[in-house]
Amino acid sequence: MEVYRMKLLKTKIIEEGTVLSDQVLKVDAFLNHQVDPALMMEIGKAFVERFQDTPITKVLTLESSGIAPSVMTALLLGVPLIFARKRKSLTLTENLLVHQVQSFTKMETVEVAVAQKFIAPGEQVLIIDDFLAHGEAALGLAHIVEQAQGKVAGIGIVIEKSFQQGHRKLEEAGYRVESLARVASLADGKVQFVEAASTVLH
Amino acid sequence: MEVYRMKLLKTKIIEEGTVLSDQVLKVDAFLNHQVDPALMMEIGKAFVERFQDTPITKVLTLESSGIAPSVMTALLLGVPLIFARKRKSLTLTENLLVHQVQSFTKMETVEVAVAQKFIAPGEQVLIIDDFLAHGEAALGLAHIVEQAQGKVAGIGIVIEKSFQQGHRKLEEAGYRVESLARVASLADGKVQFVEAASTVLH
Repeated sequence: MEVYRMKLLKTKIIEEGTVLSDQVLKVDAFLNHQVDPALMMEIGKAFVERFQDTPITKVLTLESSGIAPSVMTALLLGVPLIFARKRKSLTLTENLLVHQVQSFTKMETVEVAVAQKFIAPGEQVLIIDDFLAHGEAALGLAHIVEQAQGKVAGIGIVIEKSFQQGHRKLEEAGYRVESLARVASLADGKVQFVEAASTVLH
Repeated sequence: MEVYRMKLLKTKIIEEGTVLSDQVLKVDAFLNHQVDPALMMEIGKAFVERFQDTPITKVLTLESSGIAPSVMTALLLGVPLIFARKRKSLTLTENLLVHQVQSFTKMETVEVAVAQKFIAPGEQVLIIDDFLAHGEAALGLAHIVEQAQGKVAGIGIVIEKSFQQGHRKLEEAGYRVESLARVASLADGKVQFVEAASTVLH
Protein backbone atom coordinates (compact mmCIF):
# COMPACT_ATOMS: atom_id res chain seq x y z
CA MET A 1 0.00 0.00 0.00
CA GLU A 2 2.75 2.34 1.06
CA VAL A 3 4.55 1.76 -2.26
CA TYR A 4 1.37 2.54 -4.21
CA ARG A 5 0.85 5.78 -2.28
CA MET A 6 4.42 6.91 -2.85
CA LYS A 7 4.08 6.15 -6.54
CA LEU A 8 0.92 8.26 -6.68
CA LEU A 9 2.73 11.21 -5.11
CA LYS A 10 5.82 10.84 -7.31
CA THR A 11 3.66 10.62 -10.45
CA LYS A 12 1.89 13.85 -9.40
CA ILE A 13 5.25 15.55 -8.87
CA ILE A 14 6.50 14.44 -12.29
CA GLU A 15 3.28 15.24 -14.15
CA GLU A 16 2.08 18.39 -12.40
CA GLY A 17 5.15 19.81 -10.67
CA THR A 18 7.27 22.50 -12.32
CA VAL A 19 11.00 22.79 -11.87
CA LEU A 20 11.63 26.53 -11.59
CA SER A 21 15.37 26.22 -10.97
CA ASP A 22 17.75 23.57 -9.67
CA GLN A 23 16.65 24.63 -6.18
CA VAL A 24 12.93 25.29 -6.57
CA LEU A 25 10.15 22.80 -7.30
CA LYS A 26 6.69 24.29 -7.72
CA VAL A 27 3.79 22.04 -6.72
CA ASP A 28 0.99 24.59 -6.67
CA ALA A 29 -1.22 22.35 -8.83
CA PHE A 30 -1.89 19.78 -6.10
CA LEU A 31 -0.26 20.74 -2.79
CA ASN A 32 0.28 24.36 -1.91
CA HIS A 33 -2.21 26.48 -3.83
CA GLN A 34 -4.55 24.10 -5.58
CA VAL A 35 -4.92 20.97 -3.45
CA ASP A 36 -5.85 17.42 -4.48
CA PRO A 37 -7.92 16.28 -1.46
CA ALA A 38 -7.83 12.56 -2.37
CA LEU A 39 -4.03 12.73 -2.60
CA MET A 40 -3.97 14.47 0.80
CA MET A 41 -5.93 11.52 2.22
CA GLU A 42 -3.41 9.05 0.74
CA ILE A 43 -0.58 11.13 2.22
CA GLY A 44 -2.35 10.98 5.58
CA LYS A 45 -2.58 7.19 5.31
CA ALA A 46 1.11 6.97 4.40
CA PHE A 47 2.12 9.00 7.48
CA VAL A 48 -0.08 6.82 9.70
CA GLU A 49 1.68 3.74 8.29
CA ARG A 50 5.14 5.21 8.75
CA PHE A 51 4.53 6.19 12.37
CA GLN A 52 2.29 3.30 13.43
CA ASP A 53 4.84 2.12 16.00
CA THR A 54 4.88 5.52 17.75
CA PRO A 55 2.33 6.96 20.19
CA ILE A 56 0.98 10.29 18.89
CA THR A 57 -1.36 12.59 20.81
CA LYS A 58 -1.24 15.62 18.53
CA VAL A 59 -0.19 16.70 15.05
CA LEU A 60 1.57 20.04 14.58
CA THR A 61 2.15 21.82 11.29
CA LEU A 62 2.84 25.29 9.94
CA GLU A 63 0.27 27.38 8.08
CA SER A 64 -0.70 27.28 5.25
CA SER A 65 0.61 24.50 3.01
CA GLY A 66 1.01 22.00 5.83
CA ILE A 67 -2.65 22.10 6.85
CA ALA A 68 -4.26 19.94 4.14
CA PRO A 69 -2.01 16.87 4.49
CA SER A 70 -1.90 17.29 8.29
CA VAL A 71 -5.63 17.49 8.87
CA MET A 72 -6.05 14.17 7.02
CA THR A 73 -3.29 12.59 9.11
CA ALA A 74 -4.85 13.90 12.33
CA LEU A 75 -8.30 12.68 11.23
CA LEU A 76 -6.95 9.15 10.67
CA LEU A 77 -5.01 9.19 13.96
CA GLY A 78 -8.04 10.54 15.85
CA VAL A 79 -6.04 13.38 17.42
CA PRO A 80 -6.22 17.19 17.18
CA LEU A 81 -4.16 19.20 14.72
CA ILE A 82 -2.45 22.46 15.62
CA PHE A 83 -1.29 24.77 12.89
CA ALA A 84 1.42 27.18 13.99
CA ARG A 85 0.81 30.76 12.97
CA LYS A 86 3.39 32.71 11.05
CA ARG A 87 2.71 35.98 12.88
CA LYS A 88 0.61 37.26 15.71
CA SER A 89 -3.00 38.08 15.03
CA LEU A 90 -5.29 40.19 17.17
CA THR A 91 -7.07 37.15 18.59
CA LEU A 92 -3.98 35.06 19.34
CA THR A 93 -1.82 36.83 21.86
CA GLU A 94 -1.60 35.29 25.32
CA ASN A 95 0.96 32.67 26.36
CA LEU A 96 2.54 32.12 22.99
CA LEU A 97 5.46 29.83 22.31
CA VAL A 98 7.43 31.66 19.66
CA HIS A 99 10.40 30.76 17.51
CA GLN A 100 12.14 32.77 14.79
CA VAL A 101 12.39 30.82 11.54
CA GLN A 102 14.44 31.81 8.52
CA SER A 103 12.68 31.16 5.24
CA PHE A 104 15.09 30.65 2.37
CA THR A 105 12.33 30.69 -0.23
CA LYS A 106 11.01 34.05 0.84
CA MET A 107 14.36 35.45 2.00
CA GLU A 108 12.95 36.57 5.29
CA THR A 109 12.66 35.68 8.94
CA VAL A 110 9.19 34.87 10.18
CA GLU A 111 7.92 34.38 13.68
CA VAL A 112 6.24 31.02 14.22
CA ALA A 113 3.83 30.90 17.14
CA VAL A 114 1.77 28.29 18.98
CA ALA A 115 -0.52 28.95 21.94
CA GLN A 116 1.08 27.21 24.89
CA LYS A 117 -2.20 25.82 26.20
CA PHE A 118 -2.48 23.42 23.27
CA ILE A 119 0.74 21.52 24.00
CA ALA A 120 0.62 19.87 27.40
CA PRO A 121 3.80 18.55 29.05
CA GLY A 122 4.37 14.96 27.89
CA GLU A 123 2.32 15.43 24.73
CA GLN A 124 3.57 13.19 21.86
CA VAL A 125 3.64 15.49 18.86
CA LEU A 126 3.99 14.46 15.23
CA ILE A 127 5.30 17.37 13.18
CA ILE A 128 4.23 17.48 9.52
CA ASP A 129 5.29 19.87 6.79
CA ASP A 130 4.82 20.00 3.04
CA PHE A 131 8.48 20.62 2.18
CA LEU A 132 11.84 19.92 3.78
CA ALA A 133 14.71 21.96 2.45
CA HIS A 134 17.04 23.55 5.01
CA GLY A 135 15.01 22.22 7.92
CA GLU A 136 14.47 25.56 9.61
CA ALA A 137 10.68 25.33 9.84
CA ALA A 138 10.69 21.78 11.23
CA LEU A 139 13.43 22.64 13.73
CA GLY A 140 11.44 25.68 14.82
CA LEU A 141 8.34 23.55 15.39
CA ALA A 142 10.38 20.93 17.28
CA HIS A 143 11.82 23.68 19.46
CA ILE A 144 8.31 24.91 20.26
CA VAL A 145 7.18 21.38 21.23
CA GLU A 146 10.15 21.07 23.58
CA GLN A 147 9.61 24.53 25.07
CA ALA A 148 6.20 23.19 26.12
CA GLN A 149 7.87 20.04 27.52
CA GLY A 150 6.24 17.92 24.85
CA LYS A 151 8.02 15.18 22.96
CA VAL A 152 8.62 15.17 19.20
CA ALA A 153 7.22 11.79 18.11
CA GLY A 154 8.67 12.30 14.64
CA ILE A 155 8.76 14.57 11.63
CA GLY A 156 6.74 13.70 8.53
CA ILE A 157 7.55 15.47 5.27
CA VAL A 158 5.58 15.30 2.03
CA ILE A 159 8.42 16.34 -0.32
CA GLU A 160 12.04 16.44 0.75
CA LYS A 161 14.75 18.13 -1.26
CA SER A 162 17.43 15.61 -0.33
CA PHE A 163 20.18 17.68 -1.96
CA GLN A 164 19.74 20.29 0.76
CA GLN A 165 20.83 19.70 4.33
CA GLY A 166 17.49 19.64 6.18
CA HIS A 167 17.14 15.87 6.55
CA ARG A 168 20.67 15.48 7.92
CA LYS A 169 20.26 18.46 10.24
CA LEU A 170 17.03 17.05 11.74
CA GLU A 171 18.53 13.58 12.22
CA GLU A 172 21.63 15.05 13.82
CA ALA A 173 19.33 16.88 16.23
CA GLY A 174 17.95 13.46 17.18
CA TYR A 175 14.63 13.46 15.33
CA ARG A 176 13.15 10.67 13.27
CA VAL A 177 12.33 11.97 9.78
CA GLU A 178 9.99 10.23 7.35
CA SER A 179 9.79 11.85 3.91
CA LEU A 180 7.28 10.48 1.45
CA ALA A 181 9.00 11.77 -1.70
CA ARG A 182 12.74 12.39 -1.67
CA VAL A 183 14.02 14.56 -4.51
CA ALA A 184 17.68 13.85 -5.29
CA SER A 185 18.08 16.55 -7.92
CA LEU A 186 16.27 19.24 -9.88
CA ALA A 187 19.14 19.74 -12.32
CA ASP A 188 18.41 20.30 -16.03
CA GLY A 189 14.75 20.99 -15.29
CA LYS A 190 14.15 17.36 -14.31
CA VAL A 191 12.96 15.84 -11.05
CA GLN A 192 15.08 12.87 -9.98
CA PHE A 193 14.10 10.92 -6.90
CA VAL A 194 16.35 9.23 -4.40
CA GLU A 195 16.05 5.54 -5.33
CA ALA A 196 14.52 3.36 -2.64
CA ALA A 197 17.10 0.71 -3.62
CA SER A 198 19.97 2.87 -2.39
CA THR A 199 18.43 2.88 1.07
CA VAL A 200 18.24 -0.92 1.01
CA LEU A 201 21.88 -1.23 -0.10
CA HIS A 202 23.29 0.87 2.71
CA MET B 1 -28.25 14.42 10.06
CA GLU B 2 -27.84 18.07 9.25
CA VAL B 3 -29.46 19.01 12.56
CA TYR B 4 -27.09 16.69 14.44
CA ARG B 5 -24.05 18.24 12.73
CA MET B 6 -25.18 21.77 13.49
CA LYS B 7 -25.74 20.82 17.11
CA LEU B 8 -22.21 19.39 17.29
CA LEU B 9 -20.75 22.65 15.98
CA LYS B 10 -22.89 24.83 18.25
CA THR B 11 -21.96 22.74 21.29
CA LYS B 12 -18.27 23.18 20.40
CA ILE B 13 -18.75 26.94 20.09
CA ILE B 14 -20.49 27.12 23.47
CA GLU B 15 -18.07 24.80 25.27
CA GLU B 16 -14.74 25.73 23.71
CA GLY B 17 -15.26 29.17 22.17
CA THR B 18 -14.31 32.31 24.06
CA VAL B 19 -16.18 35.58 23.76
CA LEU B 20 -13.46 38.23 23.75
CA SER B 21 -15.81 41.16 23.25
CA ASP B 22 -19.30 41.69 21.85
CA GLN B 23 -17.68 41.63 18.40
CA VAL B 24 -15.03 38.93 18.70
CA LEU B 25 -15.52 35.17 19.17
CA LYS B 26 -12.33 33.17 19.57
CA VAL B 27 -12.49 29.57 18.33
CA ASP B 28 -8.81 28.70 18.34
CA ALA B 29 -9.47 25.47 20.28
CA PHE B 30 -11.13 23.66 17.36
CA LEU B 31 -11.15 25.75 14.19
CA ASN B 32 -8.43 28.30 13.55
CA HIS B 33 -5.35 27.33 15.51
CA GLN B 34 -6.03 23.94 17.05
CA VAL B 35 -8.33 22.02 14.71
CA ASP B 36 -10.75 19.17 15.45
CA PRO B 37 -10.40 17.02 12.30
CA ALA B 38 -13.53 14.93 12.97
CA LEU B 39 -15.57 18.13 13.34
CA MET B 40 -14.06 19.38 10.07
CA MET B 41 -15.33 16.19 8.39
CA GLU B 42 -18.82 16.78 9.81
CA ILE B 43 -18.68 20.36 8.56
CA GLY B 44 -17.68 19.05 5.14
CA LYS B 45 -20.68 16.70 5.15
CA ALA B 46 -22.97 19.55 6.17
CA PHE B 47 -21.80 21.73 3.27
CA VAL B 48 -22.26 18.83 0.84
CA GLU B 49 -25.85 18.43 2.10
CA ARG B 50 -26.58 22.15 1.86
CA PHE B 51 -25.31 22.46 -1.71
CA GLN B 52 -26.35 19.04 -3.03
CA ASP B 53 -28.71 20.63 -5.60
CA THR B 54 -25.87 22.70 -7.12
CA PRO B 55 -23.16 21.58 -9.56
CA ILE B 56 -19.71 22.27 -8.09
CA THR B 57 -16.41 21.76 -9.93
CA LYS B 58 -14.08 23.42 -7.44
CA VAL B 59 -13.90 24.67 -3.86
CA LEU B 60 -12.18 27.99 -3.12
CA THR B 61 -11.14 29.25 0.30
CA LEU B 62 -8.73 31.70 1.89
CA GLU B 63 -5.62 30.66 3.78
CA SER B 64 -5.23 29.60 6.55
CA SER B 65 -8.32 28.96 8.65
CA GLY B 66 -10.52 28.08 5.71
CA ILE B 67 -8.34 25.18 4.57
CA ALA B 68 -9.28 22.46 7.09
CA PRO B 69 -13.07 22.59 6.61
CA SER B 70 -12.66 23.17 2.85
CA VAL B 71 -10.37 20.25 2.16
CA MET B 72 -12.92 17.90 3.78
CA THR B 73 -15.71 19.42 1.68
CA ALA B 74 -13.63 19.08 -1.49
CA LEU B 75 -12.72 15.48 -0.60
CA LEU B 76 -16.39 14.56 -0.21
CA LEU B 77 -17.36 16.38 -3.42
CA GLY B 78 -14.48 14.79 -5.33
CA VAL B 79 -13.22 18.14 -6.64
CA PRO B 80 -9.99 20.14 -6.17
CA LEU B 81 -9.60 22.82 -3.51
CA ILE B 82 -7.86 26.12 -4.15
CA PHE B 83 -6.73 28.20 -1.22
CA ALA B 84 -6.24 31.85 -2.08
CA ARG B 85 -2.97 33.33 -0.87
CA LYS B 86 -2.91 36.44 1.26
CA ARG B 87 0.20 37.85 -0.38
CA LYS B 88 2.55 37.04 -3.18
CA SER B 89 5.29 34.51 -2.55
CA LEU B 90 8.38 33.96 -4.66
CA THR B 91 6.91 30.86 -6.28
CA LEU B 92 3.47 32.27 -7.07
CA THR B 93 3.82 35.19 -9.42
CA GLU B 94 2.52 34.74 -12.95
CA ASN B 95 -1.04 35.42 -14.07
CA LEU B 96 -2.51 36.17 -10.70
CA LEU B 97 -6.07 37.22 -10.07
CA VAL B 98 -5.80 39.69 -7.24
CA HIS B 99 -8.29 41.48 -5.04
CA GLN B 100 -7.75 43.86 -2.14
CA VAL B 101 -9.59 42.76 0.98
CA GLN B 102 -10.06 44.82 4.11
CA SER B 103 -9.70 42.79 7.30
CA PHE B 104 -11.60 44.31 10.19
CA THR B 105 -10.09 41.87 12.70
CA LYS B 106 -6.55 42.78 11.82
CA MET B 107 -7.27 46.41 10.88
CA GLU B 108 -5.41 46.10 7.61
CA THR B 109 -5.85 45.59 3.90
CA VAL B 110 -4.49 42.37 2.48
CA GLU B 111 -4.05 41.28 -1.10
CA VAL B 112 -5.82 38.03 -1.90
CA ALA B 113 -4.43 36.15 -4.90
CA VAL B 114 -5.36 33.11 -6.97
CA ALA B 115 -3.41 31.79 -9.97
CA GLN B 116 -5.66 32.32 -12.97
CA LYS B 117 -4.89 28.90 -14.48
CA PHE B 118 -6.80 27.12 -11.72
CA ILE B 119 -10.16 28.74 -12.46
CA ALA B 120 -11.33 27.92 -15.96
CA PRO B 121 -14.17 29.91 -17.58
CA GLY B 122 -17.47 28.27 -16.65
CA GLU B 123 -16.03 26.65 -13.52
CA GLN B 124 -18.69 26.22 -10.77
CA VAL B 125 -16.94 27.39 -7.62
CA LEU B 126 -18.13 26.85 -4.05
CA ILE B 127 -16.54 29.46 -1.77
CA ILE B 128 -15.97 28.39 1.84
CA ASP B 129 -14.69 30.42 4.75
CA ASP B 130 -14.44 29.88 8.49
CA PHE B 131 -16.04 33.19 9.50
CA LEU B 132 -18.48 35.65 7.99
CA ALA B 133 -18.47 39.09 9.56
CA HIS B 134 -18.41 42.06 7.18
CA GLY B 135 -18.26 39.82 4.11
CA GLU B 136 -15.15 41.39 2.63
CA ALA B 137 -13.17 38.15 2.26
CA ALA B 138 -16.05 36.23 0.65
CA LEU B 139 -16.81 39.16 -1.70
CA GLY B 140 -13.15 39.30 -2.66
CA LEU B 141 -13.11 35.59 -3.47
CA ALA B 142 -16.36 35.91 -5.45
CA HIS B 143 -14.84 38.78 -7.39
CA ILE B 144 -11.81 36.63 -8.25
CA VAL B 145 -14.03 33.78 -9.49
CA GLU B 146 -15.89 36.19 -11.75
CA GLN B 147 -12.69 37.80 -13.02
CA ALA B 148 -11.82 34.30 -14.28
CA GLN B 149 -15.33 34.01 -15.82
CA GLY B 150 -16.22 31.29 -13.35
CA LYS B 151 -19.57 31.07 -11.58
CA VAL B 152 -20.02 31.31 -7.82
CA ALA B 153 -22.04 28.18 -6.98
CA GLY B 154 -22.57 29.44 -3.45
CA ILE B 155 -20.86 30.61 -0.29
CA GLY B 156 -20.53 28.24 2.68
CA ILE B 157 -19.65 29.70 6.07
CA VAL B 158 -18.78 27.78 9.22
CA ILE B 159 -19.61 30.55 11.72
CA GLU B 160 -21.56 33.65 10.80
CA LYS B 161 -21.77 36.70 13.01
CA SER B 162 -25.32 37.53 12.00
CA PHE B 163 -25.25 40.85 13.85
CA GLN B 164 -22.78 42.16 11.30
CA GLN B 165 -23.77 42.95 7.73
CA GLY B 166 -21.85 40.27 5.78
CA HIS B 167 -24.73 37.88 5.15
CA ARG B 168 -27.01 40.65 3.90
CA LYS B 169 -24.27 42.15 1.74
CA LEU B 170 -23.53 38.80 0.05
CA GLU B 171 -27.21 38.09 -0.60
CA GLU B 172 -27.73 41.57 -1.99
CA ALA B 173 -24.82 40.89 -4.36
CA GLY B 174 -26.81 37.88 -5.59
CA TYR B 175 -25.00 35.03 -3.85
CA ARG B 176 -26.51 32.10 -2.03
CA VAL B 177 -25.10 31.95 1.50
CA GLU B 178 -25.27 28.87 3.74
CA SER B 179 -23.93 29.41 7.26
CA LEU B 180 -23.70 26.40 9.55
CA ALA B 181 -23.75 28.35 12.82
CA ARG B 182 -25.36 31.79 12.97
CA VAL B 183 -24.41 33.87 15.98
CA ALA B 184 -27.09 36.42 16.84
CA SER B 185 -25.20 38.11 19.65
CA LEU B 186 -22.02 38.02 21.72
CA ALA B 187 -23.34 40.51 24.29
CA ASP B 188 -22.59 39.97 28.00
CA GLY B 189 -19.91 37.39 27.17
CA LYS B 190 -22.53 34.93 25.93
CA VAL B 191 -22.99 33.30 22.55
CA GLN B 192 -26.58 33.44 21.36
CA PHE B 193 -27.52 31.70 18.13
CA VAL B 194 -30.12 32.77 15.60
CA GLU B 195 -33.05 30.42 16.25
CA ALA B 196 -33.86 28.10 13.38
CA ALA B 197 -37.53 28.69 14.19
CA SER B 198 -37.34 32.33 13.13
CA THR B 199 -36.32 31.21 9.65
CA VAL B 200 -39.31 28.89 9.47
CA LEU B 201 -41.70 31.66 10.53
CA HIS B 202 -40.67 34.10 7.80
